[in-house]
Amino acid sequence: MGGSFALALKRAGLVKRVVGYSKSPSTTERARQMGVIDVEAPSALLAVSGADIVLLAVPVSATEASFKAIRHLITPTTLVMDVGSTKHDVVDAARRTLRDKLGCFVPAHPITGKEVSGVEHADAGLYTGKQVILTPIERTFTAQLQQASTVWTALGCHVVQMSPQAHDAAYAAVSHLPHLLAFALMSGIAGQPQGKEFMSLAGPGFRDFTRIAASDPKMWRDILIANREYLLEQSKIFQQTLQSLEKLIASGDGDALEAQIAQASQSRAKWRVASPKSHE
Amino acid sequence: MGGSFALALKRAGLVKRVVGYSKSPSTTERARQMGVIDVEAPSALLAVSGADIVLLAVPVSATEASFKAIRHLITPTTLVMDVGSTKHDVVDAARRTLRDKLGCFVPAHPITGKEVSGVEHADAGLYTGKQVILTPIERTFTAQLQQASTVWTALGCHVVQMSPQAHDAAYAAVSHLPHLLAFALMSGIAGQPQGKEFMSLAGPGFRDFTRIAASDPKMWRDILIANREYLLEQSKIFQQTLQSLEKLIASGDGDALEAQIAQASQSRAKWRVASPKSHE
Repeated sequence: MGGSFALALKRAGLVKRVVGYSKSPSTTERARQMGVIDVEAPSALLAVSGADIVLLAVPVSATEASFKAIRHLITPTTLVMDVGSTKHDVVDAARRTLRDKLGCFVPAHPITGKEVSGVEHADAGLYTGKQVILTPIERTFTAQLQQASTVWTALGCHVVQMSPQAHDAAYAAVSHLPHLLAFALMSGIAGQPQGKEFMSLAGPGFRDFTRIAASDPKMWRDILIANREYLLEQSKIFQQTLQSLEKLIASGDGDALEAQIAQASQSRAKWRVASPKSHE
Repeated sequence: MGGSFALALKRAGLVKRVVGYSKSPSTTERARQMGVIDVEAPSALLAVSGADIVLLAVPVSATEASFKAIRHLITPTTLVMDVGSTKHDVVDAARRTLRDKLGCFVPAHPITGKEVSGVEHADAGLYTGKQVILTPIERTFTAQLQQASTVWTALGCHVVQMSPQAHDAAYAAVSHLPHLLAFALMSGIAGQPQGKEFMSLAGPGFRDFTRIAASDPKMWRDILIANREYLLEQSKIFQQTLQSLEKLIASGDGDALEAQIAQASQSRAKWRVASPKSHE
C-alpha cells in the first residue's frame, strides 16, 4: 500500500522526493532500487524529518508504536495518514500518543489492495478509480483534512468522509466478515482428510470466493481482533441467516428457499463496486 | 450451458446439425437466430429423434421429466449427457426412468459457468481448459463413456471420472457450500437497515467473494436441496471452524488466530484452478 502510494504520487507529479523507512533494511533497499522511493531513511523518525506528507503503511497493531517513533518530528503543517482497515483503534492510538500533533493525523482507508503484500507488488495504478474513506475526529485540523482529500482525489480516488465508528461498522459487514468466512472455509476444507482432493476439483466460483483467503495473516489477525465487536455482531447475523437457509434446505422447502436466494441474487446483481464514475 | 456446448461442438467441427428444444419457444427461436442451433424442434422427443448426442441442460429437478419425455427415441447408440451440478439425484432419476436405455446416459458436470444464464450468454469458449467430471455407474455402456470422454476432450476439457457419490461429496465442499455462504452473506447484509449503505462502501474483495451470490435462484434451489446431506455436513464443519476462529478473536488470542489464518492463507495461495495444462 505504501509503495503504491509513493508510485502514484510520483506519477501524478505531486512529490519531488520520497523517503522510505521499513523495519527490514532489505525492503527499503529494494524499494529504492525499484524507484519506489528516492532515499532510504535510517529510522522512522528521520524518515519524517522535513516531510510534508507522512503515510503509515503498517499492520494496525503497529500504529501506536509508529506514532511514538515519529511524533517528535511532526510539525503543525505535516499531514500524517494511515491506510489501516480499521479506524477506531487507530484513532485511539493517535489520541494516546500524538497529543498536540493529533490534529495532523487524518485516518484514511483506501478500498483497494491485493492479496499479495510487499514492495515488489507496488502498483502506481492501485488507487485509480477506488474509494478512500477518511475518518476525521473533532480535533482533526481542517487544513490537513482538506489536503488529504486533495491528494487522494488527485490520485483518481473518490473520497468519502465518515466517523471511525460508522467506518468500522460498515467494513465489519462488507470486508472483515467476508475475510473471516473465507479463512474459515479454507481452514475447514484443508482440515478434512479428503481436503486436497476436494480442492483439486474446484472451479472458478471457488477461485473467486476464496481469493481473499490468501491475504496476509498478520495484517488480518490485527484487523479481525481490532474490530471484534462489530465483526462478531455481523458474524452472528450471518450465522442466523445461514441457519434459516439450512432449515429450508433440510425440509426441502423449495419455494421459500428460492425466494430467499432470489433476494440475495438480486441484491448482488444490482450491486456495483463504487468508483468515481459511478458516483457522478 | 447447452448453447455454449452447441457452439463449441460447431467450432470444433464435431457436428453437422444442432437441433434445439426449450419449453419456451422464444428461447429456441433466439438460439436459431443467433446460429447456436440449426433447427427448432417442436418437442423434446422430436429433438432427440435421430440425434447422435443428446445434452440435457435443465435444472437438476427437471431431469426426470426430461428423461421421460425423450426416452422412447433414445437408441442403443445415442449418447445422452446432462450438465447438472449434482450427480446422485440425476443418476437416480435415470435409473427410475431410462430402463433399458440407462446405459446410454453418461452423467457429466463441466466445472465452469457464468452467474448469468440464457442462450444470449452462450460462449463457444466456455469449456476450453476446464475440467469435466463424468460419473458413470455400473450399467453405463463403455461405448458411450468413451464417446463422452472423446467429445469433451475435443472441446479442450480435462476429463475426470469418479462415482456420483464422490462427486457430490467434493462439490458440497468446494461449490455448493461457497454458494450457500455467499447467499447467506448477501441476504444477511441486505436485511439490515444500513445494508444498502454498507454495500455502497464495499470494494473488490466483496465483489469477488459475492460474485456467485448472483447465480440463478431456481437452479441453486435445486442443487442445494438435491445435495442436502453432504452440504449440511460441510456447513456443519464450516460453522465449527468459524466458531473456533470467533473464540480466538473474542479472546484476543493473536498468535493462535494468526496461525490458523496462515494455514488457510497458505492452502489458498498454493491452490490453482485445475486445467488441462496444470495436469500435464
